Amino acid sequence: MLEAIFAPRSVAVVGASPNPARLGHQVLKNVITNGYQGAVYAIHPTASSILDTPTYPSVLDVPESLDLAVLVIPVEHVLDVVEQCGQKGVRGLVVITAGFKEVGREGKQREQLLLARVQHYGMRMIGPNCLGIIDTLSNLNASFAGLMPNPGEIAFMSQSGALCTAILDWSKGGGLGFSRFVSLGNKADVDEVTLLEAWGDDPHSKVILAYLEGINDGTHFVQVARRTTRTTPVIAIKSGTTSAGTRAASSHTGSLTGSESAYEAAFRQSGILRAESMQELFDLAMAFAYQPPLQGNKIAIVTNAGGPGIIATDAIERTGLLQMADLTQDTIRTLQTGLPATANCFNPIDIIGDARSDRYRIALQAALADPNVDAVLVLFTPQAASDTDVTAQLIAELADTSPKPVLTSFMGAVSLINARRILNDNRIPNYHFPERAVQALAGMARHTHWRNQPEPEYAEFAVDRERVQQLFARVREAGRVELGELEAREVMLAYGMRLPQSELARSPEEAVSIANRIGYPIVMKISSPDILHKSDVGGVKVGLKDAGEVRDMYELIEYRARKYSPNARIWGILIQEQARKGRELLVGVNRDPQFGALVAVGMGGIYVEVLKDVAFNLAPISRQEAAAQIRAIRTYPLLRGVRGELPADVAYIEDVLLRVSQMVQDFPEIVEMDINPLVVYNKGEGAMVLDARIILAS
Amino acid sequence: MLEAIFAPRSVAVVGASPNPARLGHQVLKNVITNGYQGAVYAIHPTASSILDTPTYPSVLDVPESLDLAVLVIPVEHVLDVVEQCGQKGVRGLVVITAGFKEVGREGKQREQLLLARVQHYGMRMIGPNCLGIIDTLSNLNASFAGLMPNPGEIAFMSQSGALCTAILDWSKGGGLGFSRFVSLGNKADVDEVTLLEAWGDDPHSKVILAYLEGINDGTHFVQVARRTTRTTPVIAIKSGTTSAGTRAASSHTGSLTGSESAYEAAFRQSGILRAESMQELFDLAMAFAYQPPLQGNKIAIVTNAGGPGIIATDAIERTGLLQMADLTQDTIRTLQTGLPATANCFNPIDIIGDARSDRYRIALQAALADPNVDAVLVLFTPQAASDTDVTAQLIAELADTSPKPVLTSFMGAVSLINARRILNDNRIPNYHFPERAVQALAGMARHTHWRNQPEPEYAEFAVDRERVQQLFARVREAGRVELGELEAREVMLAYGMRLPQSELARSPEEAVSIANRIGYPIVMKISSPDILHKSDVGGVKVGLKDAGEVRDMYELIEYRARKYSPNARIWGILIQEQARKGRELLVGVNRDPQFGALVAVGMGGIYVEVLKDVAFNLAPISRQEAAAQIRAIRTYPLLRGVRGELPADVAYIEDVLLRVSQMVQDFPEIVEMDINPLVVYNKGEGAMVLDARIILAS
Repeated sequence: MLEAIFAPRSVAVVGASPNPARLGHQVLKNVITNGYQGAVYAIHPTASSILDTPTYPSVLDVPESLDLAVLVIPVEHVLDVVEQCGQKGVRGLVVITAGFKEVGREGKQREQLLLARVQHYGMRMIGPNCLGIIDTLSNLNASFAGLMPNPGEIAFMSQSGALCTAILDWSKGGGLGFSRFVSLGNKADVDEVTLLEAWGDDPHSKVILAYLEGINDGTHFVQVARRTTRTTPVIAIKSGTTSAGTRAASSHTGSLTGSESAYEAAFRQSGILRAESMQELFDLAMAFAYQPPLQGNKIAIVTNAGGPGIIATDAIERTGLLQMADLTQDTIRTLQTGLPATANCFNPIDIIGDARSDRYRIALQAALADPNVDAVLVLFTPQAASDTDVTAQLIAELADTSPKPVLTSFMGAVSLINARRILNDNRIPNYHFPERAVQALAGMARHTHWRNQPEPEYAEFAVDRERVQQLFARVREAGRVELGELEAREVMLAYGMRLPQSELARSPEEAVSIANRIGYPIVMKISSPDILHKSDVGGVKVGLKDAGEVRDMYELIEYRARKYSPNARIWGILIQEQARKGRELLVGVNRDPQFGALVAVGMGGIYVEVLKDVAFNLAPISRQEAAAQIRAIRTYPLLRGVRGELPADVAYIEDVLLRVSQMVQDFPEIVEMDINPLVVYNKGEGAMVLDARIILAS
Repeated sequence: MLEAIFAPRSVAVVGASPNPARLGHQVLKNVITNGYQGAVYAIHPTASSILDTPTYPSVLDVPESLDLAVLVIPVEHVLDVVEQCGQKGVRGLVVITAGFKEVGREGKQREQLLLARVQHYGMRMIGPNCLGIIDTLSNLNASFAGLMPNPGEIAFMSQSGALCTAILDWSKGGGLGFSRFVSLGNKADVDEVTLLEAWGDDPHSKVILAYLEGINDGTHFVQVARRTTRTTPVIAIKSGTTSAGTRAASSHTGSLTGSESAYEAAFRQSGILRAESMQELFDLAMAFAYQPPLQGNKIAIVTNAGGPGIIATDAIERTGLLQMADLTQDTIRTLQTGLPATANCFNPIDIIGDARSDRYRIALQAALADPNVDAVLVLFTPQAASDTDVTAQLIAELADTSPKPVLTSFMGAVSLINARRILNDNRIPNYHFPERAVQALAGMARHTHWRNQPEPEYAEFAVDRERVQQLFARVREAGRVELGELEAREVMLAYGMRLPQSELARSPEEAVSIANRIGYPIVMKISSPDILHKSDVGGVKVGLKDAGEVRDMYELIEYRARKYSPNARIWGILIQEQARKGRELLVGVNRDPQFGALVAVGMGGIYVEVLKDVAFNLAPISRQEAAAQIRAIRTYPLLRGVRGELPADVAYIEDVLLRVSQMVQDFPEIVEMDINPLVVYNKGEGAMVLDARIILAS
């Protein structure tokens, strides 16, 4: 889909310069000196040849057809040149030139004009305000980066150009290779979503890395990422997440940064692995790029030193996801036969400090052959007896014959220079410290877990959508954004929520007959559009036990309302079922500007208010996600039942979340909603919405 | 105190061998080839000279005096040789030989004999079963490690010998230097506490690193570490903390590993910085070894790239400890004058991708001069315009003139080889990724915070210790370990806790007169050593409102008790004040086998049971620690008061913790104690122990 950019048959560098100090010179040089096989043209107003490249005054003058144009020209010429590119039939643009959205209002307008022109001609564009792109498959370096990365299977996109140059430099030293390397710049056209879609089925990219400061269209991002991560692991680092970081991010790129909870939910629900640091980003990338997928979570350790073995064992347990493999009796016997008596033949397998490669062979072979083992972590410390390079070579050979991932931590430096090269050349991930290897394994396990999940199921309840539509229309006509109690009740009922029975009585007699029908105890509330604080005028009574009390209170409430609010319109008195006590939850919705409706659930009262114990999901919520969401709150044990309580009706809460999800999907105009409390009864007994609040977009 | 080991005037290598394949050869070679200036002797039964070193059949034959003997001999000869060393007047031993505690019961006995002989002669011993020791001040390498570390200011001790070799190897590559390097082995004599004490006032060691799998004497460790960390930062990695890690640790060294909560409290209360990974251990060490102490927590960032600036800003905020410095108007003006218009002159200071060293000079100088800045983090990504080496040199020069720490993250690899060397040679910490630099700064800030705390104050309450002593004696005489309710009550009273008023009545008349004195409402409980479950026989009544009720219930309780437990001895009926409702806490004590009494506090009921919301301290607890402990529970806001509640009497809870701390210090025989609930009233109104449970050591 983006062939014109990553695998063009011809490239023009607009703004190429004969002056080596100019960016345009550097870009042209990068295009022609890295093995790119297509036709290359330089565009320069007067020069006849730059760096031995055919040079023309404008793209329109190029005699052949053009796939890609790279723009390194003053900002005031960009629109004209893009117009020419459109006329010429250019299909891809890389706009390195800066001076758009990032410089304020005027720049933003210029960027809008640019995008309109690009879309008018059906072109695709990277940038503006970027470093360019690199594709090691077509040997195209259409950037002003000083280096060409090693070829490899990592596709990388970055919203920070400077980070690109740092990583290029680092990749040359560390050995990691890249398939594609994109500086996203202002993301006016091609953005993270476009690339996730394009790279998801790219056989040359085993893993996708992204450095993001903001996301253009959160909802679309989640949709696309969900599909991509089913085939290809995606690792992202999202910066600008803390308040200070966000200030820095805004001053830097002018991009909107969504709330942390929304990002967290978006990454989790779309199966993106979120790296906490740059180091983790690349540690994970190496594991995915070099090794086969991890099939389970059982890890065996082979080590020539006890201490690092313990460190790695601790790290594995701490992940909460990986487990130390229980070796089979067969494996243990094999180890006992082959290793000296002082060795530890249980996991972690300690082949002792004087081990040479022969012991590594015995232990690694046995571990890889064990059906209880999903991956092996090999630890090595340089000792007097070590045959380091031979050991590295041996690990590479054994790993190559196995479908299970093998990761290593060769700890040390000077004596390991060769061994590290051997490991890297043979695509064996090597980490300076065992904890980092474990972290990488944990990332692989998270991805496997994600891929093995069944396809998400989305519920579709029969609801009365039209009724809500009409109601919202009436509310808007009345010039309001917040729904009244009865209106919110109607919305809840239309979406199949259970609420206390409730009917409006217009006389004491009617009140008694309604109360008799509903059953006691009864709650009574004054109904008036003009009385907001019902309790303040004595307009609410609870726990009424019989017809006599209902009759008395009808007259008292009405009397008081007329006395304290003589001008209020009184519609009557609401006669309501008094709900039984149960466990109280809160279900809330906030609309994130980038990701849409974020649905929260938590135990009500102090658990939410003081402990902030809430779990989030973005809508639409699948059945599996709803189940996981409820179980993610720390106070979930209270729902499972403590101190001999029966378990609460968790399945019903899941249903409520799904109904809410459907509602906020159906009605994007709902910007805020609170069900508080949702009173949940024991398993099989459902739950009841006692109060709800809905606010529409103004 | 350990001069004979680290700075001996003469060394004998017992077990030196002419055979280069033997460990004894390697050790002797290490001693003589690394510049050690003292006298060296080899001990070998027959050889007359090994490696040109004067050689004798036994230490007793050495004509001069001997400070240190290094033993690399078969285990069966160790005791005899140590005896000879004692007779010779040797003062220090390094026993490399293995075959002691780590090989089981027989080895353990051998180790006890060894220690007894060492102590008999007043010698000090490292090991047995270790790699040896290295001291770069006296150029002594008394180990079989293949390398001599660079000299430096890091003192390192490790319970894993293999880890020592890995780190030596790594130090040669990375450039970090060490003052002392000790493989602790089985720690029969010299252990982590001995070294913490010895190194605490060592002017040559700016930071102490420890890799620990277990601790010999937890209480002593905390005492000593507390003093050491007042002058010297101590960074420890404790492995074997998870259950699987502990199993691995036990099979490895046979050392006891204490519970995770106890270790956590011990490190926190003694000011030890706990590293979560090997990487963090050395990242922190570099910062402390190379840079002056951090005086505050305000960090300025200077960067030539926006992205890394945001990443670092995020990381700083996430520490919860460091803050982004607010630059003064002066600084901002200086930056605006000196930097181009596109630069960001607020923190993070972004000097833009085409920055050369002159801009780094302007920004770094301004940041270091700003009174609101405590440290500067300089970020660098290699760009086309960069004068990398000059920039590195410049940073080193500016840092050298400032009392504030300067840390750097030069991101990249191939183009930074020189720059990294320049930074390292000039003692400027450099990290591959900005997050690691931030983590190191956070460690520095934690240490500064610790050092700046006032000396801990320990309360000494007037208590009736003798009464408790007598009571415990009686309980033991009765052959019990668990105290009865009245006994636990007595202990609590003796330590100044408030309890509900309570008196034993032997008749209805007495009951009424006691109740009248105490005031209503009243709680009544059957008092009998033979009735354990008082409620089951109707033996408890609460909420009695007047004399009539008390009289009636006395007769009813007594009647029922006699009816359902005809053989029970009835002492009478307890007449108790009914405590007002308040917020309920739990205060508990468990005795950790290594660290002693661990005091826990948390909100009672589900908060402790379900949310596991408890904070720990080891006794003795200082006033400051008690205050911090209560504030460390997540539900602390409930004590501060939510929803308009008044704040609880937190000062009184602190007092209770301190009284409990004093009690468990006074009585080591208390192995378990629970105050549950401690009912806490509003500020100024104190708290009441409603129930207590005490278990003594059997």
